[in-house]
Order: sequence, then structure tokens, then C-alpha cells
Amino acid sequence: MKDKKEEFRQKAALLDEADPLKDFRAEFKTSSDLIYFDGNSLGMMPHKSEKAVRKLVSDEWGQRLIRGWNDSWWNMPQRVAARLASLLGASEDEIAVCDSTSVNLFKLVSASLARQKGRKKILSDNLNFPSDLYVIQGIVESLDDGHYLELAETKDGISIHDDELIKRIDENTALVVLTHVSFRSAFMYDMKKVTEWAHNKGALVIWDLSHAAGAVEINLDAAGADMAVGCTYKYLNGGPGSPAFLYVNRNVRNNIISPLWAWLGEKNPFEFSLDYRPGEGASRYMTGSPTIISMSTLEPSLDILLAAGMERLREKSLKLGRFLVEMYEEFLVPLEFRLGSPIDEDLRGSHISICHKEGFRICKALIDSESGRYEIIPDFRPPENIRIGLAPLYNTFFEVYELVNELERIISQGIFEQYDTTSESVT
Amino acid sequence: MKDKKEEFRQKAALLDEADPLKDFRAEFKTSSDLIYFDGNSLGMMPHKSEKAVRKLVSDEWGQRLIRGWNDSWWNMPQRVAARLASLLGASEDEIAVCDSTSVNLFKLVSASLARQKGRKKILSDNLNFPSDLYVIQGIVESLDDGHYLELAETKDGISIHDDELIKRIDENTALVVLTHVSFRSAFMYDMKKVTEWAHNKGALVIWDLSHAAGAVEINLDAAGADMAVGCTYKYLNGGPGSPAFLYVNRNVRNNIISPLWAWLGEKNPFEFSLDYRPGEGASRYMTGSPTIISMSTLEPSLDILLAAGMERLREKSLKLGRFLVEMYEEFLVPLEFRLGSPIDEDLRGSHISICHKEGFRICKALIDSESGRYEIIPDFRPPENIRIGLAPLYNTFFEVYELVNELERIISQGIFEQYDTTSESVT
Repeated sequence: MKDKKEEFRQKAALLDEADPLKDFRAEFKTSSDLIYFDGNSLGMMPHKSEKAVRKLVSDEWGQRLIRGWNDSWWNMPQRVAARLASLLGASEDEIAVCDSTSVNLFKLVSASLARQKGRKKILSDNLNFPSDLYVIQGIVESLDDGHYLELAETKDGISIHDDELIKRIDENTALVVLTHVSFRSAFMYDMKKVTEWAHNKGALVIWDLSHAAGAVEINLDAAGADMAVGCTYKYLNGGPGSPAFLYVNRNVRNNIISPLWAWLGEKNPFEFSLDYRPGEGASRYMTGSPTIISMSTLEPSLDILLAAGMERLREKSLKLGRFLVEMYEEFLVPLEFRLGSPIDEDLRGSHISICHKEGFRICKALIDSESGRYEIIPDFRPPENIRIGLAPLYNTFFEVYELVNELERIISQGIFEQYDTTSESVT
Repeated sequence: MKDKKEEFRQKAALLDEADPLKDFRAEFKTSSDLIYFDGNSLGMMPHKSEKAVRKLVSDEWGQRLIRGWNDSWWNMPQRVAARLASLLGASEDEIAVCDSTSVNLFKLVSASLARQKGRKKILSDNLNFPSDLYVIQGIVESLDDGHYLELAETKDGISIHDDELIKRIDENTALVVLTHVSFRSAFMYDMKKVTEWAHNKGALVIWDLSHAAGAVEINLDAAGADMAVGCTYKYLNGGPGSPAFLYVNRNVRNNIISPLWAWLGEKNPFEFSLDYRPGEGASRYMTGSPTIISMSTLEPSLDILLAAGMERLREKSLKLGRFLVEMYEEFLVPLEFRLGSPIDEDLRGSHISICHKEGFRICKALIDSESGRYEIIPDFRPPENIRIGLAPLYNTFFEVYELVNELERIISQGIFEQYDTTSESVT
């Protein structure tokens, strides 16, 4: 057992040494006593983003004041959209950076249903992030005209077979709304396959990319995607509450109209026309004034991702995952851990859920720096999921090695028993 | 003329000396060669807000990472709401801090119309900020069931008599949507009078407080207001794109349901319930993840306003306005300037529009530091409005004196003629 552990330690060292992305870790604020596996929830802070916010606040707001809008803020959403377009295989005019994921989803679901008259079913699944379901439920409730939400159901709590989903898409299906990479298990749909099937049946598809953008290779245009939304604070490292984005394929956008019209989506806001005239491309889906301070992190943070390249990032993510699964099988299975994510890499995003009936207390022990040599930060999602976000820009193989060591120690030495199950949530 | 000018100079000095709020200017980043009269568009930066953003980014995001949510971010919207409640005469549970003004207006207009079944008219006016009209137009278009927007019209481009507005409120009126203080002229409605009349006719009223919050005394509960929205980056000094707020009176909230449901408005988001259950009070109107970095400016900036007190702020605002009008009458009327705001103080917010057919070029000359001793920053709103935002927290009587001097000099010496009328907008 000891020898086996040493083998993995050496392997981790070799993998880190050979990692073509190893220098990117230095772009982030890290700490030697912190191991951070929650980049799937809130990405680490790029040094350049910290500088960008400081400049924006102290120099631009503080000194340029209102002139900041003409200097640089006005076009900031477009500059960010251009970077997201590169990252997601889209054109700049298909992306708008605005609002939150939920508000963007609201716009696109509402717009889609208005176009798909006569079709009453909205299909999603019970692995979806609840907020996405709430958005649909609110729209169904407010329309009150026979629209309904149907959920494909997971059998194992981890995944839903494409065929299981696809067989529910029929001539009555207006819209399919799916999270590309599931928040709990990291299960990933085949975007192209689902989209093609939906199109065959005359349905539109909206993808939530929140756990996918920056985590897996995405090519929206090539997949024939209709629409997508997503947040920027997970693998895109935008900071807490950085603004969301939406994507509307060129082929779709002239056929759908969001019900949410506002001045940033207007053709020329500073003409102050009393009648709304939609702006060009995806910019028409913008609404109120952009949250400039929160948005100022995104140009530098996306530039880091673009410099690393999604192909290399995905490759490293898979390697990190493979290494974690190998160690899990060797050391954690005997301690009653189970995998809460698909074992098949093609069906998995960039986080891995490891489940244990004591998951909540184990998470607390990991985080508590007094229980070990590090603060190790994953997060917990009920009922039993310890989510390990593998962020290839900054996570190392050695960190994975140390995580498994700690998980083993926390169980085998009963360390988790010091923690209670009732206190505040572990986000 | 010279003596008269000197008289005003001395008066300005005396007024500044006697100003009980004079120490508050030191709370803001100012510059001796800048005179800033655009606080009605983007407020100046409080030093404490600059510190708060830096702490949030460098210490909280940078070091605490995801733990920041439990440490302090999760309750930030509520902490800001509590301060806004104090400022606006409301209870904490009637205010939510979220999204943009336009998105919040969308939620409340949609919710109101769903309740006011059978009533088809939405009343507003043509002084309203266009984005508010766009929001209504988008909803009318998407409902497509006979709802329509009717606009009361201004006769003088400055104001609309309460009676002119009120006579259009009838038994078919679902909703009245008005900006409390108009963006162009600063014309201010009597909130209580309009609300009472609307209630007599069974209509609901939504107020946009963007140009009113922090500028005039507002007591939402006492006025019997139903609903309100507003931004925080003008007189509330939240910085570019800081998040907006909404108000829903306790008496109304159980009768209206926003169509926009999302996880921050859910009863317990971290239970991840698949079915939406509305949260308590106004928090149910929250949607996606709060824009924490952009929101982090607001606690300190609102604390400054609360320390100064709205009564004293309004008093100083009126004194600044009176002084500006006196100098305008003496020096600017002869140069073909006109007042673009109500002369009656009870009908006016905290900015004053001064109109001139060369308004755009005059604005450019004011801003250009090479044309005078200062950069003087007002803003311009077509067709001819030079808006002078009087922010009582930091503007001085001497600044008003210097502004009028410069306006006089720019016209009488023909300085404005160096500037063209076609280049980029003056925001």
C-alpha cells in the first residue's frame, strides 16, 4: 500500500513536470497551503483580473468618471463577446455578454416559445440545475396556456442516456433546454446528436454552458446549436457574480424575439428614440446598463484561456481526471467511496463527483486547515456528492495526489467524526 | 457686470462656508482641476467604495475564494437592501437588490399585468426614459392580447401637469409607469397624488427612481407606493453598472407574481429543489447570482448618504439649484440660454437642464481642459439640454459659480465654435 502510494506520488511529479500548461498556474493568485478544487463553482483569481478591476475603479471610475463610457466601457461587452466567440466556436455577433444566466435563459425560452406556436412541451431533465427549471416553470405559469415542462429522468443519479432523452422529443416539443455538463455529476450530453434529433422533430434547443465553458471543447456553430447561455465565474474565472452570456445562432435570430426589450439592445441608445428598434445581431438581447466593474475581470481572464487553448485544456483536464480515478480505485473504493460521475470520459465535463455517505462531514474536514497540512476546498452537493473541480489552468497532479491522501486519512482515522452535519452550507 | 459677478463669488464662498455637508466632499476622490456636474449620470467614487472593491477582489475572491459566499457575499444584497430601505422610506423586506433597472421593471410590469386582468391600458409619458418604454413595448408585443401603451404628452418639453396625467387614468388602466424625476428636465411628479388617483381607479403604479434616489426625499411606504425600481450608479454613487433595486409594497406582493423565477428568489436555493418555491418578501424577485464585485461598492456609498441624511441633502440640492438659477438669470439669459427644467422647486429633482441651440458644442468646450481652467463635466441630452447634476454630497457653490463663468465665456468669446457637432456622443 505504501509502495503503491509512492508510485502515484512519483507519477504525479512526472505528469506535472511534463504538463505543457504548467506555467499558467502562475497567472493566478495561489497559496502553498491551499489546494483548490472548486474552480467549477468559483474560479481562482487571475492576477491580471485583479489589476484590471483596480485600474477600472481607481483610474477610470475615480478619475475619468463618466468619460469612461466613451474611453472604454461602452465596447467592453463586445470585447468580451469576441473572446467568448473564439472560445465557444461562434461568431462575435452571435454572443451577448449581459445579465445573469437565469435572465438570459428567460429571454431565450420566452422567445423560442413565441416562435413555436402550437407546440406545448418543453423538455428538460432532472439533472438540470434547478434555476434553469425554475425559469421554465415561471414562464409556463405565466403563459398559462397549456405549455408544460417534462423532465427526462436519470436512472442512476449520474447520467441520462442520449436515447432516453431523444425518444421524448416529439412533434409537440417546442423546446429542449439542457445543461451541457451537469452541475452535480458532470455528465455531458452529445450536443450535436441531441441538436440534430431535435431539429428533425422541429424543436429548438437551448444549452446551458455554465459548467462546460472553459471546461470542455465546445463548437456551437459546428454543432448546429440554436441557442446557449452560461455564466463566466466558474472555469472562465470572472470572479463572484461576473456577468453571464448568451448565444443565438445567426440562423435562428431573425425568427425569435425576446420579450425583454431595453436600451442596451436598442439600435442607437443615445438617440433616445421613444420606440424600440432592435440592435444588430445578439446585441439586441442586451438589456440594462452593463455591470462594468464586475465585467472588467473578463478580458484578462478569457485571454488566459485563449492562450492555453481549449484543446490543451481539455487534454489536461482528462489526464487529471484519469489520475484521480486511478487513485480513487486504488485507495477510496475500499473506504466506501463511490464515483458520482460517468466513468466514460466522453460523457464527462471537468469535475468529478466522489460520493460518500459522510460526504458533508468529509468536506468540512478537507476544508479545515487544522485537520491536515492544507486547506483543501472542493464543494458539496446533496445528497452525497463531493465535487472535485479539475481546473487545468491551475490544478496539478500533485494536488490530486494530496486530495486522495487526505480523503483516505479523514476516513481511516475517523477525522470526519469531529464535524457536525447540521451547520451552515458548504458552498 | 463685473461687480455683480464679484457679488456672486462672495456669496458662493459664504454658502460653502456655511454648508453643513461641506465635509462630505472629502469622502470622494476629487481633483482640483475637475468640476463634476454629472453625478446624475455616474456618481463620483467614494474612497471607501474603492477600498471595498479592492478588499473584495484581493482578499475575498483572491484568498477566501468560494468561502467568500458564506463569509459575507451571500447576505450582501440584503445588507444593501436594508440601507436602501432606510433611504427610501421602506422596509428591508420590501426591497431587493438585483439585476438592472430595465430587468426589474420587466418583472414588475409583467407581474402587474397578470394581476390586472381585463384592463388593457398601460399609461406612461413621453418624458420617460426610453428604456422604460421599451420594456413596456416588449411586453405588449409579446402578450399580443390587446394591451397597449399610452403616453401622456408634455406641452413644453419640460413637464406634464399632474392633472394632464391623472385624467388619462381610467377603469381600463392596468398600470401607470412613470419616472419620478425625469432624466432630461428633472421634472418631478407628486408621487402621493398620482398614486392615490391611480388607486381610486383600481390601477397600480410603478415608479422609476433612477434620477430620484439620493437626489430627493422619498418615502415609499408613506406615499402608498405600489412598486418602484431604480439604479444605484447616479446619486447613490455605486460605480459604473452597479446593480439596480426594486421595491414591492407589502400590501401588493402577495397579489402579484413575476414571471421570472430563478434560484436567488427561491426559498432555499441550496436545497436544490426541482420545484420553485418563492422566497420571503421582495427577495423572491431576485434571479441569478448577484454581481458581487459590482455590488461591493454600495454599502459604503449608501452609508455616506445615510450619514448626511436625505433632508439635509435635499436642502443643499435646492440651495445649489437656487444659486444656479439666480446666476443663470443674471448672466446666461442674455446669451440665449433657456431653462430646460421646471423653475418651481417642488417640481424638480436635483439636476437642472440649461438649453442652448449650441448645447452640444458648448458641452465639448466645457469638458475640454484646454479651453479653460478646469475640466467641467456636465452631460448633454438631445436636442439642446446641458444637464447640470447637482450632487449635494460633493458639489460646491463655488463650482456652480465657475460653471456659469465658463458658460458665459464660451459663448461671449465664441469658444464653442472650435468644436464640431458630429463626433462621438457626450455621455
